[in-house]
Amino acid sequence: MSKLVIVGTVAFDAIETPFGKTDKILGGAATYIGLSASQFDIDGAIVSVVGGDFPKNDIEMLEDKGMNLEGLEIVKQGKTFFWSGKYHNDMNSRDTLATELNVLETFNPVVPQTYKDAEVVMLGNLHPMVQMSVIDQMNNPKMVVLDTMDFWMDIALEDLKKVIAKVDVITINDEEARQLSGAYSLVNAAKIIMEMGPKYVVIKKGEHGALIFYKNEMFFAPALPLAEVFDPTGAGDTFAGGFTGYLAKTADYSFENMKRAIIYGSCLASFCVEKFGTERMQNLTKQEIDIRLHQFKSLTQYEIDLS
Amino acid sequence: MSKLVIVGTVAFDAIETPFGKTDKILGGAATYIGLSASQFDIDGAIVSVVGGDFPKNDIEMLEDKGMNLEGLEIVKQGKTFFWSGKYHNDMNSRDTLATELNVLETFNPVVPQTYKDAEVVMLGNLHPMVQMSVIDQMNNPKMVVLDTMDFWMDIALEDLKKVIAKVDVITINDEEARQLSGAYSLVNAAKIIMEMGPKYVVIKKGEHGALIFYKNEMFFAPALPLAEVFDPTGAGDTFAGGFTGYLAKTADYSFENMKRAIIYGSCLASFCVEKFGTERMQNLTKQEIDIRLHQFKSLTQYEIDLS
Repeated sequence: MSKLVIVGTVAFDAIETPFGKTDKILGGAATYIGLSASQFDIDGAIVSVVGGDFPKNDIEMLEDKGMNLEGLEIVKQGKTFFWSGKYHNDMNSRDTLATELNVLETFNPVVPQTYKDAEVVMLGNLHPMVQMSVIDQMNNPKMVVLDTMDFWMDIALEDLKKVIAKVDVITINDEEARQLSGAYSLVNAAKIIMEMGPKYVVIKKGEHGALIFYKNEMFFAPALPLAEVFDPTGAGDTFAGGFTGYLAKTADYSFENMKRAIIYGSCLASFCVEKFGTERMQNLTKQEIDIRLHQFKSLTQYEIDLS
Repeated sequence: MSKLVIVGTVAFDAIETPFGKTDKILGGAATYIGLSASQFDIDGAIVSVVGGDFPKNDIEMLEDKGMNLEGLEIVKQGKTFFWSGKYHNDMNSRDTLATELNVLETFNPVVPQTYKDAEVVMLGNLHPMVQMSVIDQMNNPKMVVLDTMDFWMDIALEDLKKVIAKVDVITINDEEARQLSGAYSLVNAAKIIMEMGPKYVVIKKGEHGALIFYKNEMFFAPALPLAEVFDPTGAGDTFAGGFTGYLAKTADYSFENMKRAIIYGSCLASFCVEKFGTERMQNLTKQEIDIRLHQFKSLTQYEIDLS
């Protein structure tokens, strides 16, 4: 087992979907990543920042899940990052209604001394320079995974490229892969992005699954077709948490194990969307995960005699 | 091995994609289905109609592939069905520029006497009543597969529902499944469509793969991510030809074998899009198919120890 360092937002979200509407609830990339990774009983730490308005019981909940929160800065006189969004009827697109950076504006991540030797680092979506500052604090990690989004490609592309050059894995969605590479075909996009630095490129296609590219190989994990998707918020982060949590648990960085890691990521993401916010992930059991892994297996596994 | 009866259009297509433009070339659902199914060296017959303008060498080519063409009516004074379309830059959508029904307007399919006992019947996209007339001519087939499209849902829904009630498998794309069922989730859509008659529902998602539903089970075959998609015309029919060709070859109608059949369908469709029209399918070799089946396997197969 390896240690896992997670950096990202810990936030309040207000979400509206065709199924309902929430007031300010617990959200943020690092929250979803942490909740997902904690399913593997690993030694993980969250590095983030919240305001004095952040509830004590949410901090306790994350600690109960086994997350070390020494690196969670609490700015007593500040307010927690807030995001509000509304999903369209197809659940595939959303409008951002509000973004209040608050304490995130001056966030300066500090990795706890005892986690600087972590082998796996998950850089959740944040300004590329904040992500870079975490890389700089680490002692020779084995596997640095970067998540990012089109927003940073639009306003901080040069900074983003510097971080991309330093990581082992990048996870982005299909449209972002096209924007970053300038190529429409995902096969070509992945090749171009690999030339920017990462050995592995993970392209998330939402309900259409995820692809991982490595040298001339590729592997595909489907998303589980679901009768109802209740709230897609955090699915990508939950995927990343499952991916890095499994890598930290197994400490095996072979491509064969990466395949299993993205299956676990897809499996955990399929739970996340079943309820609003983090609710499903907070109450998930090992038995439920096990049953769903069987469903994933029967969804894609087959026997064909090949010569 | 079982016999396979294929009904559908044999046509001229004029295609424009971002990569180029063709004059009138060989096309049509039955053509693509037949070329794909013929990869399995089965005993297959095409039931269709062409005009006096249809080239002899195209007929010979299909016969050389092993297709029986007794059921291909040639209306000497008529003109062959013509379709012309232009694909958008993303290759996922297209505009129809021209549709000239010609001999198709009075098409009355006649299944050759020696193929009325075929176990597998592939009803390519045509007016539902034409498809029904083929079912009526068959002696107790084991597996009747129906392909259709939104056009018939718009103008002949009641006729379509009558045919759907009589078939074992329906293949439609995701948007059509939503239209036919009124459900957005493909899991729910498949359930509703199964209640209309078919035991198996195959939902084609183009570059995002295909799903097959049976009772409470589902199986997913990815599309092979390709560096270049040259011309998507006929990919769905090639998929259907691979699916039914494999079923006819194996004469095994278990769900386990259906899974293999949609993998073969996806595999063959991945070739179809690599060149304009039927070119790639006409020149495909067994060795190429074998190599690609290995690629499909490594794309989705993994080992996880499950309890």
